[in-house]
Amino acid sequence: MADKKYLIGVDLGGTNITFAAVDFRGRITRKLKIPTQASRGRDAVMKRIIDGIRQLVLEQGSRAGRPAGVGIGSPGPLNSRTGVIYETPNLPGFRDTALAAPVHKALGLPVYLENDANAAAFGELWAGAGRRVENLVMLTLGTGVGGGIILGGRLYSGVDDTAGELGHMVIDPTGPVCGCGQKGCLEQFASATAIARRARQAVEKGGGSRLLKLAAGDPANISAKLVHEAFFLGDALARKVWLDTCRYLGIGIGNYINIFNPQKVVLGGGVMTSGRRKALFEPLKKEALARAFSRPARTARIVAAELGDEAGVIGAAGLALQKLR
Amino acid sequence: MADKKYLIGVDLGGTNITFAAVDFRGRITRKLKIPTQASRGRDAVMKRIIDGIRQLVLEQGSRAGRPAGVGIGSPGPLNSRTGVIYETPNLPGFRDTALAAPVHKALGLPVYLENDANAAAFGELWAGAGRRVENLVMLTLGTGVGGGIILGGRLYSGVDDTAGELGHMVIDPTGPVCGCGQKGCLEQFASATAIARRARQAVEKGGGSRLLKLAAGDPANISAKLVHEAFFLGDALARKVWLDTCRYLGIGIGNYINIFNPQKVVLGGGVMTSGRRKALFEPLKKEALARAFSRPARTARIVAAELGDEAGVIGAAGLALQKLR
Repeated sequence: MADKKYLIGVDLGGTNITFAAVDFRGRITRKLKIPTQASRGRDAVMKRIIDGIRQLVLEQGSRAGRPAGVGIGSPGPLNSRTGVIYETPNLPGFRDTALAAPVHKALGLPVYLENDANAAAFGELWAGAGRRVENLVMLTLGTGVGGGIILGGRLYSGVDDTAGELGHMVIDPTGPVCGCGQKGCLEQFASATAIARRARQAVEKGGGSRLLKLAAGDPANISAKLVHEAFFLGDALARKVWLDTCRYLGIGIGNYINIFNPQKVVLGGGVMTSGRRKALFEPLKKEALARAFSRPARTARIVAAELGDEAGVIGAAGLALQKLR
Repeated sequence: MADKKYLIGVDLGGTNITFAAVDFRGRITRKLKIPTQASRGRDAVMKRIIDGIRQLVLEQGSRAGRPAGVGIGSPGPLNSRTGVIYETPNLPGFRDTALAAPVHKALGLPVYLENDANAAAFGELWAGAGRRVENLVMLTLGTGVGGGIILGGRLYSGVDDTAGELGHMVIDPTGPVCGCGQKGCLEQFASATAIARRARQAVEKGGGSRLLKLAAGDPANISAKLVHEAFFLGDALARKVWLDTCRYLGIGIGNYINIFNPQKVVLGGGVMTSGRRKALFEPLKKEALARAFSRPARTARIVAAELGDEAGVIGAAGLALQKLR
C-alpha cells in the first residue's frame, strides 16, 4: 500500500485552525483543531499552520499513506491563483501575504489556497448536500452571510476570486446599515446576528415572554438559537421574527434562483443548525419558491447543508484534489 | 471559394423577424427584416422564418459561400438543448413548440435555438463591447430589463435555460408591482417603461415644464428618451428622475458585481441609446461602483453596448458557430 494517498484540508479561522486528513471520496479520517492565536501575529500563525500539518501527518502514520497535497481555506479577499491573502479583518498582519508558497516550501507538497466560503460550498458539492448535482448556490447563515457558487461542477470565483459575496446583495435600500457600507444587504436580515438583533428590539418593545425567559430575563442574551427554541415553545414574537427572516431570506433566495437557475440552494451555518427542523424550514422554502419564476422554482431544491463546520476543511481538500488532477 | 461559409442569425420578435448573414468574425454582411405577423398564428410564423432564411440565402448568392448553420434567438422560456419554446407571451400559439427541428428539416442545416437576451449578451461578447473579455454581465434596458451572463467565454444559461433573469432581482420589496408578480424588481425602476412612468407621475404633481413641452403638453407622451432630452435642456425634474434611476440601477449593478466579480458590465437597450452620453452615463457608473466591494469594483468596467438591436441576431449566429465547433 505504498502508493496510498490522502489529502490535507486546513480551515484557517480567526479563532481556530482545523486540520483534517481527507480521503479521495471526501471523508475525514483524522482531525486536529488548535487555537489560531491570531494576536501573536502573522509569522506565528504561519508556523502554527505548518506545525499543525506536520502533526497531522505524524498522527496519520505511514500506514495511512502519503499526503498528496494541501488545500487551505481562509477568509479573504485572497487570490487563489497566486496563493496570496490580500487582507483579512480577523487575522491581523496578513495584508498581501503569500500563504501557499511558504507552506509548500516547508513541506514539499502542492499547496492551494481558497476563500473559506467557497471551500465550504465545494465541500457540500463533493461530500454533502450537493452530491450528484453540478449547479448550486450555497448560503452560510452565521455571524454574517457567506456565499459560494458552483457551476458545472466547478467553483465559480470570478476574475479576482471575489465572486459569490451572496450576503451582500442589497434587497432593501432602506434597511439597516451593513458592515460593507451599504444599507439593507441580505446579511442584515438573515444572519444570526440580524435575527438576534430584531428579536431583542422586539422584546424591548414588549412581548416575547417565553423568549425573554430563555434568555434569563436579559435581552442581551437573545441569540438566533434562542429565537428558534422560543418558536418551538409557541412564543408569538419569536414566530414573527422567524417568519420575517423567512420573508427576507425568501427574497434573497428567489433572486438567486432567477439569476442562476440552479439545481440546489444549500443553506448552512449556525442559523440552519436548528433552522433545518421542519417547522422552521418549510415556511422558508415556501417563501423562497414563491419569489422565483415558476420553471426555475420547480427545478431548484432548497436543502440544508450536511457537513456542518467541516464543510470548509473538506472542501479545501477537495479543491486541492481537483487542482492536482 | 467553394468552401466559403457564413452563418445565419435570426432574431424572432413579437413585431419583426430579423435575418442576417454573419461572417465568422461576427460581422453582418446582409440583413433582412420582415413583420412577424404573430396574430396569424404559429404555423404561419414558422413558414415566415423558413421563407425568410431561404430569401436571405438567395440574396447572398452562391458567390458568398454556403450557410454553415442557423442560430435563432427567441423570447422564452425555451429549451436550447431541445430547440423547443415552452411559451412566450408575444407569440400566441407557441406553447411547447419545437422550433429548431422543423427549420432544420426544411433547410437541411444545423439549427440552434437560444433565448434572445442570452443571444444579445453573446453577440456583445463576440463582436461588441465584450470583445477580449471572458466574464461579463449584460443588462438590456428596454420595455423590460433583460439579462445575459457570460462566464469563461461561454453563455451561462442554468439548468433549464432560465438563468440570467437579471431584471427580476427584487431590490426594494416596497417597490411597484412587477409583471412577474413580485414587488420592486430592478425592472420596475430601470426599464424605459419605469423611467417614463416615474417622470409622468412627477410631472402630474407639478414641475418638469421643459419635459412637458417636449411631450407636446401631454404627460402620456413622456418617454425615457424625452426624459434624457429634457435632462440635457436642464430640466430639474428630468434630472431628478434620471439620478433616481441611476441610484436604483446602481444597486442592481453593484449587486451583480458582488455576485459575479466580472470584467465588464455591458448596458444595452433603448434607455442606453441616449443614456450612453457622458453626462448621463457618468453618474450611473459612479453609483454602481460605489455600491460594490472595492476589489471587484476596481476590476469591473461598466460600458455601453455597441451592437444596438443587432446584438441578438449576431449573437444567435455566434452561438450557432460555437455549437458547430
